[in-house]
Amino acid sequence: MLKIDGARLWASLMDMAQVGATARGGSRRLALSEEDRAGRELFEGWCRDAGLSLHRDAVGNLFARRAGEDDSLDPVVMGSHLDTQPEGGRFDGVYGVLAGLEVLRSLNDRGIRTRRPLEVAVWTNEEGARFTPAMLGSAAFTGAMALDAALASRDAEGVSVGEALQALDWQGDLPLGRRLDAYFEAHIEQGPILEDNGIDVGVVTGGQAIRWLDVRVGGQAAHAGTTPMPLRHDAMFGAAEMIRALESLAQRFAPNGLVTVGQLEIAKSSRNTIAGLLDFTIDLRHHGDDVIAAMEQEARVLLADIAARRGLALEIGVHWVSPATPFDADCVGHVREAVQALGYSHQDIVSGAGHDAIHLARVCPTAMVFIPCVGGLSHNEAEDVIPEQATQGADVLLNAVLARAGRAD
Amino acid sequence: MLKIDGARLWASLMDMAQVGATARGGSRRLALSEEDRAGRELFEGWCRDAGLSLHRDAVGNLFARRAGEDDSLDPVVMGSHLDTQPEGGRFDGVYGVLAGLEVLRSLNDRGIRTRRPLEVAVWTNEEGARFTPAMLGSAAFTGAMALDAALASRDAEGVSVGEALQALDWQGDLPLGRRLDAYFEAHIEQGPILEDNGIDVGVVTGGQAIRWLDVRVGGQAAHAGTTPMPLRHDAMFGAAEMIRALESLAQRFAPNGLVTVGQLEIAKSSRNTIAGLLDFTIDLRHHGDDVIAAMEQEARVLLADIAARRGLALEIGVHWVSPATPFDADCVGHVREAVQALGYSHQDIVSGAGHDAIHLARVCPTAMVFIPCVGGLSHNEAEDVIPEQATQGADVLLNAVLARAGRAD
Repeated sequence: MLKIDGARLWASLMDMAQVGATARGGSRRLALSEEDRAGRELFEGWCRDAGLSLHRDAVGNLFARRAGEDDSLDPVVMGSHLDTQPEGGRFDGVYGVLAGLEVLRSLNDRGIRTRRPLEVAVWTNEEGARFTPAMLGSAAFTGAMALDAALASRDAEGVSVGEALQALDWQGDLPLGRRLDAYFEAHIEQGPILEDNGIDVGVVTGGQAIRWLDVRVGGQAAHAGTTPMPLRHDAMFGAAEMIRALESLAQRFAPNGLVTVGQLEIAKSSRNTIAGLLDFTIDLRHHGDDVIAAMEQEARVLLADIAARRGLALEIGVHWVSPATPFDADCVGHVREAVQALGYSHQDIVSGAGHDAIHLARVCPTAMVFIPCVGGLSHNEAEDVIPEQATQGADVLLNAVLARAGRAD
Repeated sequence: MLKIDGARLWASLMDMAQVGATARGGSRRLALSEEDRAGRELFEGWCRDAGLSLHRDAVGNLFARRAGEDDSLDPVVMGSHLDTQPEGGRFDGVYGVLAGLEVLRSLNDRGIRTRRPLEVAVWTNEEGARFTPAMLGSAAFTGAMALDAALASRDAEGVSVGEALQALDWQGDLPLGRRLDAYFEAHIEQGPILEDNGIDVGVVTGGQAIRWLDVRVGGQAAHAGTTPMPLRHDAMFGAAEMIRALESLAQRFAPNGLVTVGQLEIAKSSRNTIAGLLDFTIDLRHHGDDVIAAMEQEARVLLADIAARRGLALEIGVHWVSPATPFDADCVGHVREAVQALGYSHQDIVSGAGHDAIHLARVCPTAMVFIPCVGGLSHNEAEDVIPEQATQGADVLLNAVLARAGRAD
C-alpha cells in the first residue's frame, strides 16, 4: 500500500500553525481576516510548488487542482478549512486540507497519474466564529444556502462576507454547485471515542440526526419564606425532575442516543423567590432518524407527565431538526478497504459535529476519515494529535482517493 | 371585648391607597419619594386629628404618640411601614400602621386611658426597593445597622438616604435605640397558609431561621454531539439530581422545612455544549435553629455524595445566615388571649418573610398579628384582604396592646 510522507505533513501542519499563532499554543485565523489570508497564501505557495492550479468560486472557496488523465471527468475532491475559532487549535480543519495536499505531493513523488482530476478544497468560513452560519462556504457551494444570503452575512462590526471577499480579491469564477465525483474529508474526531477505545482511525459512516427542542415550564412565582411546600408550583423543582428523566432517556437509548441540556434560565430569578417561569433547551442526537423521532416522542411524554402531576404548564417547541446524513456506501467502502489493507486499528464511527462533508454529502458521494484528538479536546488552543496517527489518517485518505479516482497507468 | 371601627379603618386604608395609586389597583410609594412624603402627610394629619404628638429619629422613623397615665414609662409601640414596592399593593405595611392608628382612635372614642404611653411607628424604607437593605429604618433603630451606614445607602440614581431625609426635613431628635416596653406589628401574612386553612387570624410566634447557600458544580464542558454519555461530566445533569435531592430533603423536614432553588446559571451556556460550570442558590428555612443546622448538614452530605459519584467538583458557600427569632412569650400570650376572647378562628404561625418586628424582637418584647391575604399574593398590585378580617386583626391588636399597656382606670 502507498504511504504519504508523515514528516512532511507534520512540518506543514506546524508551519501553518505559526500563522496567527497564539501565546498558548493555538491558532487564531478568523474567516476572511488578515491571518486567514496569510494562511491561504502559505497554502497556495505550497500548491504552486506542487504544480497545482488554483481556482476560486463566488464565495471564496479555494480549489487546488491536479489534472487527471481525462481532465474532463468530474474531480475527486479532498479538503476541509483553514479558518479557526478565536482561540482555536492547530488541527481542526487544517488537518483535512494539509492531508489532502500531502496526498497530491505523495502522488507527485511517485509519478502516479490518476484517471480523474484531484482537488483539495479550502471551504470559506467553516467555523462560524466571525460570520454565521458555520459551514457557510460549503453551504453556498451545495445550495443549502443562497449565495446572496451568504454574501450578506455580517460580522459583529458590520462587515459583510461580500465586502470581506472583495477586499481580499477572493471571488473567482468557478461555478458554485459544479459536479464533483466524490468528496473525502479527513478530520480530527473532536470527541473522545477513538482515544478511549485505543483506535487509530475512524471510518465515518455518516452524520447524526439532531433535534433541538425549547422547553418552557410555567409554575407560580411565590415567596420562598411564606409558601408551604405542598402549596408550591415550583418550576425549578419540576425542571430538575424533567432533566433527570431526560438523562434516564439517554440511558435507554444507549450507546448512540445523546441528550444534552445546555441552557437553562429562570425568568426574574431571585434566591428567595420560587421559580415561576423557566426555559431550558434539549439537544437530542442519534444515528437514526426513526430512533431520534422515538426519543423526541418519549421525551415529550415524560415531560408532560411530570408537568401534569405537578400542576405546571409546559410548552415544547422545535427549534431545529437536522436529519441523519448517511455517507456514500462506495466511498465509505474505499476508506474501510484502505485502512484494512494498511493494517491500522479502526472502527466505524458517526460524526457528532458538523463538517463541510455533511453539506457535500447532499450533492455527491462523500466519506470522512477521523483521527483521534488528545483528550477529545477541540475548539481549544490545547487541541493536539499524535503525529503517527496524523500520518495514518493521511495514508488512508491517499489510498481511498486513489481507489475512487483510478490509477491512469 | 373592645372592638375597633372596621369601617373607619377600611376608609383610611382606601384613602392611603390613593396616594401613589397605580392603574392596576396597587400603590407606588417608594421610600423617601414624593409619594412617600404625601402618604406620611396624610397619616400625620389623621394623627393630629386624633390628638397624637409626632416625633422623628435620625433615620426618619416617625412615631405618633398618645400619652400614658404615667408618661415616663417606656411606650408600647405598634406599627409597620407606609413605603411600597414599585408595583406594590395597598396593604403590605400600611395595614399595620393604620391598624395601630385605629387602635388609638378607638381608645379615644371610648375615653380609655392607658397606664403606659402608646405609639404608632412608621419605619423608614422597609421594602428595600429604593434603598438597600430592606428594613433599613428598624435596623438603624435597633442597632442592627450603624446610622452612618444607613444614611450612606444610595439609590440607583446615587441619592443617599441622608440626602433624601434632609430634602424632606424628616430627621428628628428622638434617640435611636430608646427603650420600648413592647412592640406589636399587625401585617398581612404574605403567604397562603391562613387562607388555605380557613383561618382569620394568625398568632405569630416568631420568625424563621434562614440559611442561604451558594452551590458551584464543576464538570467538563464538551461537545454535545461528539461526547458519549458515559464519558461526560455534565454539571447540569448533576445539578438536576442535587435539586431533586433537595426537594426530597424538604419532604423529610415537613411541614416546617422549606427549600427553594431560586437561581441557577450555567457559565458560558450553549445549547450544544455540555454544561461545564454551574451555580445555583439554596434558601433553607425552618422555625428551629437546631433543625435548620441539621437540614444544612444533610444537604451538604447529599450534594457531596452526588458530586463524588458523578466525578463533579463541588463548592458550597454560606451566603447569609439568619437565626430564628422567637417572639416574646408574654406578648404572644396577649395576642393569643385576645383572639380567643374575641372568638375569632386562629392558629399559631411563624413569619416566613422579613418584617420590622424581626429587628425589634432583638431589643424589646415583640409579637405580630397576621391576617390572611387573598391567594397569598403580596408585592403585587393585586394584593387584597377581606375587610372583615382586617377588622378582626385590628380588634386583636387593640386588646393585646391594652393588656400590655394597662388600663389606667
